[in-house]
Amino acid sequence: MTEAVVSHPHFISLEGGEGAGKTSALAAIRDLLQARGFEVVVTREPGGTPLAERIRELLLNAKDEPLAPETELLLMFASRAQHVREVVRPALQRGAFVLSDRFTDSSYAYQGDGRGLDKAWIEALERRAVGLKPGLTLLLDLDVREGRARTAGRDLWPDRIESEQDDFFERVREGFRRRAAAELQRFRVIDAAQSPAQVAAAVSAAVSQWLDAPK
Amino acid sequence: MTEAVVSHPHFISLEGGEGAGKTSALAAIRDLLQARGFEVVVTREPGGTPLAERIRELLLNAKDEPLAPETELLLMFASRAQHVREVVRPALQRGAFVLSDRFTDSSYAYQGDGRGLDKAWIEALERRAVGLKPGLTLLLDLDVREGRARTAGRDLWPDRIESEQDDFFERVREGFRRRAAAELQRFRVIDAAQSPAQVAAAVSAAVSQWLDAPK
Ligand SMILES: Nc1ncnc2c1ncn2[C@@H]1O[C@H](COP(=O)(O)OP(=O)(O)OP(=O)(O)O)[C@@H](O)[C@H]1O
Ligand SMILES: Nc1ncnc2c1ncn2[C@@H]1O[C@H](COP(=O)(O)OP(=O)(O)OP(=O)(O)O)[C@@H](O)[C@H]1O
Ligand SMILES: [Mg+2]
Ligand SMILES: [Mg+2]
Repeated sequence: MTEAVVSHPHFISLEGGEGAGKTSALAAIRDLLQARGFEVVVTREPGGTPLAERIRELLLNAKDEPLAPETELLLMFASRAQHVREVVRPALQRGAFVLSDRFTDSSYAYQGDGRGLDKAWIEALERRAVGLKPGLTLLLDLDVREGRARTAGRDLWPDRIESEQDDFFERVREGFRRRAAAELQRFRVIDAAQSPAQVAAAVSAAVSQWLDAPK
Repeated sequence: MTEAVVSHPHFISLEGGEGAGKTSALAAIRDLLQARGFEVVVTREPGGTPLAERIRELLLNAKDEPLAPETELLLMFASRAQHVREVVRPALQRGAFVLSDRFTDSSYAYQGDGRGLDKAWIEALERRAVGLKPGLTLLLDLDVREGRARTAGRDLWPDRIESEQDDFFERVREGFRRRAAAELQRFRVIDAAQSPAQVAAAVSAAVSQWLDAPK
């Protein structure tokens, strides 16, 4: 009934708001892990399997009608349930590292803090539908307006979530920071206002230290 | 936290296994309600809104990869959360009757009894994502093989759920019957082995009696 959420040392997630540099930072971590001889599976959420990518499409480009916050949360976890079973767990079981661009922390921050859905509900979904969390989570923390400025060129046609207002993203940022403060063991907060090279160095240092720490 | 699941007297659902005659029976009920001067919204699950119909498509035609039972359950409730907010509640609020071809009872029977997912989880989803149930549910009860024979011509290319084995559908049937026995107030069990005209007469009688009963 009360399934546990188990962390796995080979599972690393990148979290942060829009334009914080998550996707850019992935390559540095992938290269570092591959240089150490590990198989690395780079994946993302929502998405990560063909079916989960179709769910992502519904989530980000739902133009037919307003998407209820509850529907958004359930679609996020439907995508995650599939992603965990089809990609993340099989990769971990064969000894690979899994590097995910967002994972469950984003649901707490966006659907919990951003949309105001009950955290207890999100916890129940995490326990029942996911049951797994990263051993290490790198939170790229950045001023909301700075992140928006970075993606301004790219986002001529912002998706449904990118179209939210700044106060929404402020709640998301605070939510991420609170989660990091509550789970110091798992999170490393990276100052994402630094240059790309500095951010890459900071995430690489955090991952190296994680690999070398006794577990 | 413990949201209630409230029933509404103008909300009627049709339930039953594959080929039991749910869709065929809808017309008789719609005609009866319209003859009494009510607005009637006929709808179905999974589906019922453009977005929910896209979720239905994912559910029934997921050919990319095996769909995990947990993913199936979450997609069903994502569709339902949207359907309730966009169609069912607005219709009830303006005084219309809502006639739904399947509703939450199907999740208990198919994902609960059929797939073996925990009923407590389904109850939690019902409370948090739906919060509403029919005042009257007509269960069309039919022998599994008889239902299969009826749809055999139609189902040259059965969908993902129709492709299940008989023991799955036997568990679904038993699940529906147990739910009906546990909620005698809400359910009317109709013998769906009767002729179409007899089934139409039986569902019409049940609905007439429901309309005329003091509430
Ligand atoms: N440290 C940085 N300094 C300045 N610009 C950066 C930095 N890191 C990334 N960028 C640029 O900012 C934009 C957003 O970066 P990226 O796509 O990696 O962010 P993201 O966190 O993945 O965003 P999203 O949440 O939208 O997926 C890109 O154009 C990228 O080149
Ligand atoms: N009482 C009946 N006797 C014989 N055949 C029937 C009866 N009711 C419906 N049928 C036929 O059986 C088939 C299935 O009926 P229908 O589509 O209404 O069932 P259903 O419960 O909606 O099925 P599904 O679960 O697949 O949606 C149709 O071909 C229909 O014409
Ligand atoms: Mg990105
Ligand atoms: Mg039907």
